[in-house]
Amino acid sequence: MASYVPEAVVRRLPSYYRHLRVLEQEGIQQISSQELGDRMRMTPSQIRQDINSFGGEGRQGYGYQVSTLKEHLRGLMGLDQEHRMIIVGAGRIGKAVANYTGFPQEGFLTVALFDTEPQGTALDTGSARIPIYPMEELEQQLPGLRANIGVLAVPAGAAQETADRLYQAGIKAVWNFTPVDLHCPEDMTVMNVRMSDSLHILSYMMNHREA
Amino acid sequence: MASYVPEAVVRRLPSYYRHLRVLEQEGIQQISSQELGDRMRMTPSQIRQDINSFGGEGRQGYGYQVSTLKEHLRGLMGLDQEHRMIIVGAGRIGKAVANYTGFPQEGFLTVALFDTEPQGTALDTGSARIPIYPMEELEQQLPGLRANIGVLAVPAGAAQETADRLYQAGIKAVWNFTPVDLHCPEDMTVMNVRMSDSLHILSYMMNHREA
Repeated sequence: MASYVPEAVVRRLPSYYRHLRVLEQEGIQQISSQELGDRMRMTPSQIRQDINSFGGEGRQGYGYQVSTLKEHLRGLMGLDQEHRMIIVGAGRIGKAVANYTGFPQEGFLTVALFDTEPQGTALDTGSARIPIYPMEELEQQLPGLRANIGVLAVPAGAAQETADRLYQAGIKAVWNFTPVDLHCPEDMTVMNVRMSDSLHILSYMMNHREA
Repeated sequence: MASYVPEAVVRRLPSYYRHLRVLEQEGIQQISSQELGDRMRMTPSQIRQDINSFGGEGRQGYGYQVSTLKEHLRGLMGLDQEHRMIIVGAGRIGKAVANYTGFPQEGFLTVALFDTEPQGTALDTGSARIPIYPMEELEQQLPGLRANIGVLAVPAGAAQETADRLYQAGIKAVWNFTPVDLHCPEDMTVMNVRMSDSLHILSYMMNHREA
């Protein structure tokens, strides 16, 4: 069950998780595919098909148990495990990501920044002091940091070589904030974040609002 | 021509634009659908269909002129216009967005932050000093700021009322960094940015890498 989840459904998993968390906060214990569809702006049959494909269980005439489904998704997305992140590139973007993620967030912890020319030895995010190490110490520091995700926040020109170096050093997952399409080995997982893309789409929609 | 562009194609416009900019930087003046497809990991026929649907012009046996196509996209996405953004919520996320966007970026300029309890009167992003105003001055400051995009970076509980207030004050486009699905009038454009979603998808992919 749920051994293969279609990519389109994978992209919707966080949205299911978000809505189930809200339902739980609202004290709602069970929900029908109709009601969940209304909230997520999807049809009940889409909801049933999605949930079936990722192995969630429902009962005819009862719907879904909110907490059970939420916990199922939590396990499926590995949010019940601790992920330790290093941010490579402590410039404007790296610091913004550190400030954004540098608080106790479910399952994700930023443990260090690296920079070729570190300004200072730590970044104070308000709730944590995150050490900044010189880039040449990457391989030396990594074992102690036990990090499994690398946040790529270096200039575009250094993106590919930095990704290669992270891979060599054992980091097999990259949250990529550079505009570069990385070429990586098959066992490396890359998630691109393209902030300006979403701004450009917003701008397009503003430009074509009357349509 | 290009009066209606399918949503899936709209989502790919920024990627076309990004690749064309890189091609231009590389000094490449023309490109075939085959070569562009190789770079964008799409088939030549998908490329031709997309470009046709957004009104770009190509020539049989020649392909596309890089600069012409890039400029066409620039106009289509309204990047040839100036967009002025205000950030509502000057907490961790608002400041991260200001630091991320607060540099001279094509077409987008952050002109002010607003906060219910402003800490200080300005945010220094390194390249600009962006004023922070108390939230009660929103309606009073807006005319002088000539802003057309509101960045929503308030706590989830205040998201809807803040979006309503921005709309009332004449801001018809929202770049939404809150986890809330906003209910807005039809002539309001909302683009959601869900940073944690992309982290959750990365985590899912790490968990299912062997598949």
